[in-house]
Amino acid sequence: MPISEHAADPAEGKVRKRDQEVLDAAVEVFCERGYASATVQDVADKLGILKGSLYYYIETKEDLLYRAVMAVHSGSEAVMDAVAAQPLGPLERLELYVRRQVEHNLANYKIMTVYFNDVAQLSKLRRREVLARRAQDKEFLIALIREAQAVGPGHSLPPERAADLVTGTMVWMNRVYRPGRRPTRRELADTCAAYVLNGIVGRP
Amino acid sequence: MPISEHAADPAEGKVRKRDQEVLDAAVEVFCERGYASATVQDVADKLGILKGSLYYYIETKEDLLYRAVMAVHSGSEAVMDAVAAQPLGPLERLELYVRRQVEHNLANYKIMTVYFNDVAQLSKLRRREVLARRAQDKEFLIALIREAQAVGPGHSLPPERAADLVTGTMVWMNRVYRPGRRPTRRELADTCAAYVLNGIVGRP
Repeated sequence: MPISEHAADPAEGKVRKRDQEVLDAAVEVFCERGYASATVQDVADKLGILKGSLYYYIETKEDLLYRAVMAVHSGSEAVMDAVAAQPLGPLERLELYVRRQVEHNLANYKIMTVYFNDVAQLSKLRRREVLARRAQDKEFLIALIREAQAVGPGHSLPPERAADLVTGTMVWMNRVYRPGRRPTRRELADTCAAYVLNGIVGRP
Repeated sequence: MPISEHAADPAEGKVRKRDQEVLDAAVEVFCERGYASATVQDVADKLGILKGSLYYYIETKEDLLYRAVMAVHSGSEAVMDAVAAQPLGPLERLELYVRRQVEHNLANYKIMTVYFNDVAQLSKLRRREVLARRAQDKEFLIALIREAQAVGPGHSLPPERAADLVTGTMVWMNRVYRPGRRPTRRELADTCAAYVLNGIVGRP
């Protein structure tokens, strides 16, 4: 669930704004140098504050990676909620999901890059939390695929295998995309959606 | 081109065997710790030799990553050569390529993991060499797709975009695969081939 948008206490809004700035700086630094090579000092430098001040917001470097990873999952959850809320047929829903998720990933390509490069470096306990979130995402996608295959002309890929294929297709766009160049985010989202629909369901 | 299999000079064969052992140990270490965190000392420890002895085979840690990356490209080239040599129709050729490449990648999943996680850490000059090799691979795949689309029932994905989608599909299997568990390499290769054929070309 996204956190509440109500900030009755102005000080609370200020803390959240600072949290976001810290996260943005960490993502910039990790994306540039890789999580393993980056230091808390690098992130403090990016923010233009002292390292000691940064430790007011975090306890360890890993906290920064963890926040980035959780922000990615919150973003995906928002996409899934939005797609689930649309009054659509199964084929259109699967298509919309692929399109929205790809556009969302590419609009946030730096944090996605950090996620895919470095998520394995989280502690065991936190990795387990990530696996649970991924399992939820996968269940959502499997349900979309199952419903789409039920009304489509029918290919026989098992929904669970198909879900991995769709995820791979979407994630890879992060490596293909170059901001400011073609193919644009929209073009990549369109080609992914067409490929997925043809590949998983087929067209009438 | 693969290096010649003739080792008339027995000493030469010994050197190549040692080179392979060094590469294997480096891949193990990089796969486990990530290239950035791993040290030449770690690789020497894995081989059970002194660090100084390892420097007889390499000049820098990056040489080990470079050899791994080049070995991956040689492997892909061997797959492409084998597929090109088969007397097949365009649809069957594309299908065979996907199947063979996925099975090859998964049979070599540790070196593939190092490749995809760490190739960006090569020096600029070496990265340029990698980009040239990838451009060749992509040309090969684009030609396969173009030929398959010409005889298939016809989807309209542009071959160049389609090539990125196919690559993403194949590469992602490396994250899905768990040695010794299902889906097996063969099962993953089969589902990828079906997805690609449906997604890019469609079935009659």
